[in-house]
Amino acid sequence: MIPRVRPNNIRVGRLKNINFSARSFTSKSALFYVTPSPTPKPAVQGSNPQLAFPCLDKLEAKNEKLQTCGIDADNVSSLETGPEPSYSFVQTGFELFKSTEPIHLDHGGVLPEYEIAYESWGELNSEKSNLVLIHTGLSASSHAHSQPKNTKPGWWEGFIGPGKYIDTDKYFVVCTNVLGGCYGSTGPSSRDPADGEHYATRFPILTVNDMVRAQRELVNKQFGVTKVHACVGASMGGMQSLAYAWEFEDEVNKVVSISGCARSHPYSIALRHTQRQVLMSDANWNRGFYYGKVPPHVGMKLAREIATVTYRSGPEWEYRFGRNRADSSRPPALCPDFLVETYLDHAGEKFCMEYDANSLLYVSKAMDLFDLGYLNRSRAQSTRKQPSPSTENSSKTTVPEQPYEEKANSASLTQAESLDDLKKGLSKIAHKDILVVGVESDILFPVWQQREIANVLKEVSKGGDIRYFELGEEISNYGHDTFLLSLDDIGPPVKDFLEN
Amino acid sequence: MIPRVRPNNIRVGRLKNINFSARSFTSKSALFYVTPSPTPKPAVQGSNPQLAFPCLDKLEAKNEKLQTCGIDADNVSSLETGPEPSYSFVQTGFELFKSTEPIHLDHGGVLPEYEIAYESWGELNSEKSNLVLIHTGLSASSHAHSQPKNTKPGWWEGFIGPGKYIDTDKYFVVCTNVLGGCYGSTGPSSRDPADGEHYATRFPILTVNDMVRAQRELVNKQFGVTKVHACVGASMGGMQSLAYAWEFEDEVNKVVSISGCARSHPYSIALRHTQRQVLMSDANWNRGFYYGKVPPHVGMKLAREIATVTYRSGPEWEYRFGRNRADSSRPPALCPDFLVETYLDHAGEKFCMEYDANSLLYVSKAMDLFDLGYLNRSRAQSTRKQPSPSTENSSKTTVPEQPYEEKANSASLTQAESLDDLKKGLSKIAHKDILVVGVESDILFPVWQQREIANVLKEVSKGGDIRYFELGEEISNYGHDTFLLSLDDIGPPVKDFLEN
Repeated sequence: MIPRVRPNNIRVGRLKNINFSARSFTSKSALFYVTPSPTPKPAVQGSNPQLAFPCLDKLEAKNEKLQTCGIDADNVSSLETGPEPSYSFVQTGFELFKSTEPIHLDHGGVLPEYEIAYESWGELNSEKSNLVLIHTGLSASSHAHSQPKNTKPGWWEGFIGPGKYIDTDKYFVVCTNVLGGCYGSTGPSSRDPADGEHYATRFPILTVNDMVRAQRELVNKQFGVTKVHACVGASMGGMQSLAYAWEFEDEVNKVVSISGCARSHPYSIALRHTQRQVLMSDANWNRGFYYGKVPPHVGMKLAREIATVTYRSGPEWEYRFGRNRADSSRPPALCPDFLVETYLDHAGEKFCMEYDANSLLYVSKAMDLFDLGYLNRSRAQSTRKQPSPSTENSSKTTVPEQPYEEKANSASLTQAESLDDLKKGLSKIAHKDILVVGVESDILFPVWQQREIANVLKEVSKGGDIRYFELGEEISNYGHDTFLLSLDDIGPPVKDFLEN
Repeated sequence: MIPRVRPNNIRVGRLKNINFSARSFTSKSALFYVTPSPTPKPAVQGSNPQLAFPCLDKLEAKNEKLQTCGIDADNVSSLETGPEPSYSFVQTGFELFKSTEPIHLDHGGVLPEYEIAYESWGELNSEKSNLVLIHTGLSASSHAHSQPKNTKPGWWEGFIGPGKYIDTDKYFVVCTNVLGGCYGSTGPSSRDPADGEHYATRFPILTVNDMVRAQRELVNKQFGVTKVHACVGASMGGMQSLAYAWEFEDEVNKVVSISGCARSHPYSIALRHTQRQVLMSDANWNRGFYYGKVPPHVGMKLAREIATVTYRSGPEWEYRFGRNRADSSRPPALCPDFLVETYLDHAGEKFCMEYDANSLLYVSKAMDLFDLGYLNRSRAQSTRKQPSPSTENSSKTTVPEQPYEEKANSASLTQAESLDDLKKGLSKIAHKDILVVGVESDILFPVWQQREIANVLKEVSKGGDIRYFELGEEISNYGHDTFLLSLDDIGPPVKDFLEN
């Protein structure tokens, strides 16, 4: 049974009103929406005119530009001549932590060395007891807030700062780009030290727990911090904050998990599956080996459009777009036509060249694999320890002689067995202080998933302060994106929890 | 404001199972997941092995087969040699009504002549007063129930029959393939009589109201019925049943609209938009001109996977798939991996060759355009009348000299104005007996949309018997597909309404 009942100490927020309110490359490769076949000539005497396809005309023009003149080179030279992809330049001004020690991953892979990009705000106190670690969602960089080396507003600009919900007068706030990302940290677009080539799809399968173990190296070795005051994250960040406590239960005081889950559920997996399959069907994706070539920008655009649908809610769009058309003077079309369609088209267009396609695949997959159940933990521990790559001399790490094989120790579970497994898994952190925040209008991480975390933690509680806060639909219609948009609704319970 | 309150006379109402069917072609065209580049050779000394992509290997093998040997010719010859696409053979045993009169469409197009495929069950009584018209969802054929010319179970087999919820001992039950479809009725895969070529994207933009006006010709001319006992439909069929009454308010006694809406809302438009864009990005789609070539089967597969996500609900999949993997002995993969992914993959694979891609685009678009508001009605009436195509001599119908231009008479509406417009529009049918059925777990047509129909009809009521019946999440977790699966929950209120 899925816990569908609100936990006891729900406090439903009262809110103020919501204001319902690339770059180019050069390559000679063929494109996804491949070479347009010579436009079919309309029949001379058809009963009706041929429909127009301005959206495809635009894609073709873009392809043309990418393949010939290609470059919009403020920061980056041609992909063919320059060594690195453009998204390395989208984010700047971060610091780099480099580990020359290997990291052994949950599913048996290894990175002989790796870098973690991070930014920080506020000051670490002398007791080294005030570090607050911010964990990001899938596509975010370490730039949660502006700072001298990058003065552009960060993705949580209004949430972090002096006197803000995460108060930089009190806390030393650190945010990283996740392992597997493309904004400075080691990911599939990075070069494998073993041969100097991009990892691409030779990058090993990654988990959210792998990400937090890399973050812990930063916290320990860069800052000398052995216990962080709090882990705070939303979406995939809300997975990471729980995972950090789960991996290092004595190294964190407080955990905030917003719009997250204790394990990915099949519906969320399905929604991400469609995005990955669309992206992987772009011929330019080329099984991940597109570096130095035209990237799979059409597949990325389409994947982002699908994702954007899952980030918001129906009622918000009802208010914002209604049935209004982008241009009511034009006849209906199969290309974007209603206002909501042009919005999606724009969202996809904007994203398609500024995030690495392989990072999207690996990080998205890591979310699917997220599971704080007991069986997953025991599997990961046994797998991670497998001796194939040498841990003594990372520079000599090589391909294991036998390809990695998953042990068949996690056979199918019934729903009841699965819930029991989750209880057993979460009992590891049930002595911690944990704030879970859910949003009723969220489709991607439905609120019953946050209720599940809170309910299970309460049931197996070992004295931790487990709090649950839910924003009803009457408060926020922003869906999964609420944590980015309704700061004054999400903020107060978070501030209260961190500071008291 | 969106009406989010359950209408007064809600009766919250248990379950079964369902089954969902491809064929191969020959062509020399390049494919969507185009020619596989020579598989990138794994670096000799990478830190980890290259991931495997069995799903892409399979797509490539399929492409190879389609392009070379191609044929699975039980019923159909090669696309290159045979004249008609394979889905014409998926459905058999229907009757054809042919209109030699043109039909002028809501957005200005014309079909000089057209055919409507239909099947029927039961007997028309001597008063010709017992016809029940069944309207289908997007991809269904006229085969709602088995019959002597096609003994395979129909898509509503358990719902229709002697003594069943739609009782063929009492009613003469007729179901059509919609105009624009590909199972016998005229659609984009049909040949334009003006030049004998497939319409493809020279087919004019179509509306749900156009579909019902074609159905009414069948009812009138084939059966001599001037007033049908009831229009019954679910999903797009629930749009049609309302539209039939709206177009011909004196020609129908009772209306049943299940999991439908009075107008398409932006979230539903967004979900269909992503499917269309993915399909149109398949190079094999070729702006609609793929007949006689390899069809855009990859785009169709992906579009169907996205659609399948919208047809069910999270809790159902939680129960059915959980986090179980397809094969837990294998390492995690970017290709389908979790059980829910293999289910989606299979659903897409099965559908991709048995429905026409252009039909999907046009019918999906017709759903987006559905709007029983007043402004839309007045627009359609003025547009439909435009004199450009000759109505006197359909065989001479030609391309208008000036391409069709929409009048800018439907500027942006606020949410309040939009609701007022809907009230004004629906008041046209507020004297009818109407049963609206909603399903709380539906994501594609959320239940507030059915509540909206019922609430608005009650508000503008002119004495009609307006009933609303809702299946809560505790009753059905099947989401939008509930009408196909939970027959014993949906059936009783429908039977009661039709017979009393």
